[in-house]
Amino acid sequence: MKLRMGMIGGGPGAFIGAIHRTAAQMDGEIELVAGAFSSDPSKSKLMGEELGLKGERVYGSYKEMIEKENALPENERIHFVSIVTPNHLHFEPAKLALENGFDVVLDKPMTFDLKEAKELKTIVEKSGKYFCLTHTYSGYPMIKEARQQVKNGKLGKVRKVFVTYPQGWLNDFIEGSDQKQASWRTDPSKSGIAGCMGDIGTHAFNLAEYITGLEVEKLCADINIVVEGRKLDDDGAAFLKFNNGASGLLVASQVLAGEENNLTLKIYGEKGGLEWKHADPNTLLLKWPDKPAEILRAGTGYLSSFATHNSRTPSGHPEGFIEAFANHYRNFALCVKKRMENKKPKEEWLDFPGVDAGVRGMLFIEKIIESGKSNEKWISLKS
Amino acid sequence: MKLRMGMIGGGPGAFIGAIHRTAAQMDGEIELVAGAFSSDPSKSKLMGEELGLKGERVYGSYKEMIEKENALPENERIHFVSIVTPNHLHFEPAKLALENGFDVVLDKPMTFDLKEAKELKTIVEKSGKYFCLTHTYSGYPMIKEARQQVKNGKLGKVRKVFVTYPQGWLNDFIEGSDQKQASWRTDPSKSGIAGCMGDIGTHAFNLAEYITGLEVEKLCADINIVVEGRKLDDDGAAFLKFNNGASGLLVASQVLAGEENNLTLKIYGEKGGLEWKHADPNTLLLKWPDKPAEILRAGTGYLSSFATHNSRTPSGHPEGFIEAFANHYRNFALCVKKRMENKKPKEEWLDFPGVDAGVRGMLFIEKIIESGKSNEKWISLKS
Amino acid sequence: MKLRMGMIGGGPGAFIGAIHRTAAQMDGEIELVAGAFSSDPSKSKLMGEELGLKGERVYGSYKEMIEKENALPENERIHFVSIVTPNHLHFEPAKLALENGFDVVLDKPMTFDLKEAKELKTIVEKSGKYFCLTHTYSGYPMIKEARQQVKNGKLGKVRKVFVTYPQGWLNDFIEGSDQKQASWRTDPSKSGIAGCMGDIGTHAFNLAEYITGLEVEKLCADINIVVEGRKLDDDGAAFLKFNNGASGLLVASQVLAGEENNLTLKIYGEKGGLEWKHADPNTLLLKWPDKPAEILRAGTGYLSSFATHNSRTPSGHPEGFIEAFANHYRNFALCVKKRMENKKPKEEWLDFPGVDAGVRGMLFIEKIIESGKSNEKWISLKS
Amino acid sequence: MKLRMGMIGGGPGAFIGAIHRTAAQMDGEIELVAGAFSSDPSKSKLMGEELGLKGERVYGSYKEMIEKENALPENERIHFVSIVTPNHLHFEPAKLALENGFDVVLDKPMTFDLKEAKELKTIVEKSGKYFCLTHTYSGYPMIKEARQQVKNGKLGKVRKVFVTYPQGWLNDFIEGSDQKQASWRTDPSKSGIAGCMGDIGTHAFNLAEYITGLEVEKLCADINIVVEGRKLDDDGAAFLKFNNGASGLLVASQVLAGEENNLTLKIYGEKGGLEWKHADPNTLLLKWPDKPAEILRAGTGYLSSFATHNSRTPSGHPEGFIEAFANHYRNFALCVKKRMENKKPKEEWLDFPGVDAGVRGMLFIEKIIESGKSNEKWISLKS
Repeated sequence: MKLRMGMIGGGPGAFIGAIHRTAAQMDGEIELVAGAFSSDPSKSKLMGEELGLKGERVYGSYKEMIEKENALPENERIHFVSIVTPNHLHFEPAKLALENGFDVVLDKPMTFDLKEAKELKTIVEKSGKYFCLTHTYSGYPMIKEARQQVKNGKLGKVRKVFVTYPQGWLNDFIEGSDQKQASWRTDPSKSGIAGCMGDIGTHAFNLAEYITGLEVEKLCADINIVVEGRKLDDDGAAFLKFNNGASGLLVASQVLAGEENNLTLKIYGEKGGLEWKHADPNTLLLKWPDKPAEILRAGTGYLSSFATHNSRTPSGHPEGFIEAFANHYRNFALCVKKRMENKKPKEEWLDFPGVDAGVRGMLFIEKIIESGKSNEKWISLKS
Repeated sequence: MKLRMGMIGGGPGAFIGAIHRTAAQMDGEIELVAGAFSSDPSKSKLMGEELGLKGERVYGSYKEMIEKENALPENERIHFVSIVTPNHLHFEPAKLALENGFDVVLDKPMTFDLKEAKELKTIVEKSGKYFCLTHTYSGYPMIKEARQQVKNGKLGKVRKVFVTYPQGWLNDFIEGSDQKQASWRTDPSKSGIAGCMGDIGTHAFNLAEYITGLEVEKLCADINIVVEGRKLDDDGAAFLKFNNGASGLLVASQVLAGEENNLTLKIYGEKGGLEWKHADPNTLLLKWPDKPAEILRAGTGYLSSFATHNSRTPSGHPEGFIEAFANHYRNFALCVKKRMENKKPKEEWLDFPGVDAGVRGMLFIEKIIESGKSNEKWISLKS
Repeated sequence: MKLRMGMIGGGPGAFIGAIHRTAAQMDGEIELVAGAFSSDPSKSKLMGEELGLKGERVYGSYKEMIEKENALPENERIHFVSIVTPNHLHFEPAKLALENGFDVVLDKPMTFDLKEAKELKTIVEKSGKYFCLTHTYSGYPMIKEARQQVKNGKLGKVRKVFVTYPQGWLNDFIEGSDQKQASWRTDPSKSGIAGCMGDIGTHAFNLAEYITGLEVEKLCADINIVVEGRKLDDDGAAFLKFNNGASGLLVASQVLAGEENNLTLKIYGEKGGLEWKHADPNTLLLKWPDKPAEILRAGTGYLSSFATHNSRTPSGHPEGFIEAFANHYRNFALCVKKRMENKKPKEEWLDFPGVDAGVRGMLFIEKIIESGKSNEKWISLKS
Repeated sequence: MKLRMGMIGGGPGAFIGAIHRTAAQMDGEIELVAGAFSSDPSKSKLMGEELGLKGERVYGSYKEMIEKENALPENERIHFVSIVTPNHLHFEPAKLALENGFDVVLDKPMTFDLKEAKELKTIVEKSGKYFCLTHTYSGYPMIKEARQQVKNGKLGKVRKVFVTYPQGWLNDFIEGSDQKQASWRTDPSKSGIAGCMGDIGTHAFNLAEYITGLEVEKLCADINIVVEGRKLDDDGAAFLKFNNGASGLLVASQVLAGEENNLTLKIYGEKGGLEWKHADPNTLLLKWPDKPAEILRAGTGYLSSFATHNSRTPSGHPEGFIEAFANHYRNFALCVKKRMENKKPKEEWLDFPGVDAGVRGMLFIEKIIESGKSNEKWISLKS
């Protein structure tokens, strides 16, 4: 049986909505059956038609969708919603969906601000529903492998974490153009207090904590608006201090001319180091002080169950961004289905980003922007 | 509307069947609704259940499927079949499907032998149906770009073609084991006269001709059975001579310990060269004698329409093997749908491997195996 | 004619002394004829014998060498001294040599502290002699090319500078061992106030300013002692602000397990970016927002005169660390010889690090260590 | 003490002569003191002056040099000659030098034809002198490591050998230009029966046999003249059969537009594979069927004594082409000096290419050119 998905957002021209739909459906666990694709009902309808949905399952607003789906018989109505709207439209639909008994997949960053994030955490916990925040990169098998390598002590105590996220697409002032992505992501009323740091800095932060299993305790940031006329940060960096004493460095920029999307991680412990690059996502490099570095590859037989569970092809048959995205959807779906059978999900399935990661991300945004404006050197992330 | 697909083959444990299903459905153009997944009806049924198909659309044999689907009303019955059986079971189901008015997607190599291939060509042409042979690699956007670069004369007259396909998975004698792939691919009664050359050599050959737009006129091969006890070739190489005077080299081996699946192409003309590696499929390298080499990347704005049409994500968001596979299905589906509207497909959609490529592939198999056994140096591919 | 060199330091077991000797002599412009290789006269003598020097030209102290060489007839005595001692023994011999009319090559960092550096600047300027500070990396042809690309406006106004210098050799506490390098470099009485930042941070800083032609105006640093028991910093990072408004990031660490010496530069301007890695020093990558990245290679015909002048081999014949080192010696020697002819050196020859770069480096050390200890966020580099 | 070298050839404009001089002298074991740099005495004189040699040690012909040096007192006269002339001028000076008691370093290929090669072998053996043939690539530390890995059985029985030598510098017809290299290397009266195969094919062949410790028993070649008007082969490939049953593939071409000099080796055994590329010469990749590939790096502590002996710098400080060249000179010099002390050289020192490798190379040239013209498939290398 396929889980029935209702989508909120993802109307015509939205890049990430199309990715969500493909990712959700690619493994045959999920089917898109309903949608409120735009706040403009005619656009929503258009999108529904393009996607071949039945007319009556295409709604003019998310409220309408949740209400009407709720009224459908259980064997017809959607199992969960996927919310792919801009940041200022995350909290309300997520809240409504959870309170009406739907599991939720939500695009990152979790909410418009930290206050909403904490509230959503309470709502999720109260609801008992599954909640998945689509931090894509932790869906890659070699990122899962990286986490297991650290967890199993292969690197020894973590000492140093570098996470760098370079992009170049906001190198020019394109806000005024018809670039839909650029427009809302640089608009404080839709994006929140952060631009670059909210959009991609949160991915970097999430990976740093996910892979190491550590928490950032304080940070010191240099936050910049490089392109004249822009309203939100488009470039920045932060020193990090982790709760085990390790230090780190986070870089995120969207004005690095010629860069694509080559998120890069380097983590070092007392015994060894690891390296992963999004430009070559099926490879994990392990480095040792006194023996040859090793090249671990997705789809091989020597990886952890967490990596293996998230691969579809044998080694040498590259999987990419859509598959990483799909892994979160698939794991989320497997958990939801297992609950229907009143059974426990596997540990490997539960390994998708949830509401706690979301709160951490919003805390990160608040504190890194605060640090960028502060003359104080270190800003604490403890509440 | 989604095209309705019926699958032949792809039962439990078949690697490539699952890839076909995911690839076919990932873009929302195609839906799997029927299948004859195994010659064992109980296994077919099991697979159908696992895939959530309706019981009555799961068949015990391909003959039953084609007959019964044909009897269904037009708005229910499948539009096309996808055949993913071992080589000796390609021709008959393809023939039956075409003769019953179904378009066909068929896994490579096209048939068991050259005779069947030529016959199938006649049948396809007579049928007026679309026929797609899934040579995966020509589905990659940067392979399409490579073809356009050559076609547009960027390299000048082609002088030299290197195509190398290294694998290592048959490094040991695993035929006796439960490795289903190994068993039929090394069995002459199922695979035909060639092992490695049929399985991966044909991919290499197809790419060489597809990208250059040239035809191989003669070859000289060194064909080996490296692993003791194996019945078919597991390693080989051939010098090639093309119809424009260019020479080339084709290497295919499945016994190279530690190799995954890094199909590599290097093509040189009078003015420049190009290089593509499956390990990094979203990159195409152009090399020039007197200026810096250039790194072309999938998803960018400077590529040909053929590359762009076959990308789903912006540059820096890697697509992989499944997406390349999906591109053939998507293009095939777009053509079939256009025919339903009595309209002409775009040139970019028609750019999938067809029955002519299939005949060339079977001719290649026959001649390279002949050359491997011959004391004559050059074997002609002209008939 | 070969210039005659006298070496100060570089006794038995010194890594960098041997590199200096090979580099100095490799192009046939310079000949080692004298030395005070150790403060222990017997060790100095031993080294001189091993190197095949005449006994009377091997001295027990640098003072003796300078005095006695000065007494030799002009056509016998050394032309210049090369000083390769630990940091605390840089200033005095350099001063004495300059004041006695010898040109000077000096290993980096320039002096023990900033005060000495400023004094040495006065002495050099007064002397009218050539002074070369061996910041190796600016000797690489592709680093010279990078500088020219920026200078010629290819990248547009510089916006962002990343310079990262990762090493792993101090990953463990090896100070107590017989690792001569580790012992003095981690000893404040020999190295000065900085460990890692003095040893390799200064290289990174020098490159950032050399390539961009900009000056760092302020910085904010996170400086760490990672390995327990160590007396000086072994890890750190700093945000940089340049005098054109660009921001930057400098990372230097010697405790990154498994890292070798892969100094990496990434510089971005309004129009494009460049990237260079010491692991592949003959390549310079240029990145553009709207066209393919370009791979510039040493030894090709399309490079600037600054790169070409510093290559010995055609492209594809890699040159390395020793050749980069040798370039500084060769350029220094060409300038000295030209002065003997009362002629002006070429601009390409003058392009080696001098006393100003040395003062900048010592200022950097003082300020980055100050910042590491400060609660103030930004520390100015203006005096 | 430094060995005194006399050079034959290497006059103005000769690329390889300058490399030989730098390589010979870089480690302080050898000093150039005499030369017959050109068959034109005035050019020879000019070169000698440029190099700062004493006028009386610069000769108008190699015969004069050998005669007059022989007449000098033993503590003045040269110890050995280095011959860097075109191929047709290898045999006679080598013979004369050996017969007059001088050790010999000779550029490759060894002679003009196989007959000369066999004769030279007799002369060398009779002379009891050291003879070094400068096949540069076997001087690289990681090539030495590769040989040891095979020798120590790490890969198991060798099954497959790929050696590929791509260049692009003869992509156009430049024979008529003032490109001195192109002129003699494409002229049968100076180069012999082979162009590309003699110039670079012999390097590839030498490496294949050196690393595997095997001998090629037969081959089948495709030899081409790609550029119109050229007199000798500029492109080719050969299947190889080794004396242990392994098969192989050798590719050498000088018309691959945009290629530099990226000689590449891939060798596979029953248990694993190895890969080396000249573009990254300090890395050796080991590949395994069931565990991660390993990256071995020059200058590390885990390498064989053969690799370690041939490194000058710690890992991460790249050495290149000149150092590889220098390793042969240094090892040759160490052996010669040891003989002066009537002692045995170390096994690591003796590991430079000698007269047997030279005869194999000339046999290879003869047979591959024969095969290129033959309709027979396989040509034996057994005599």
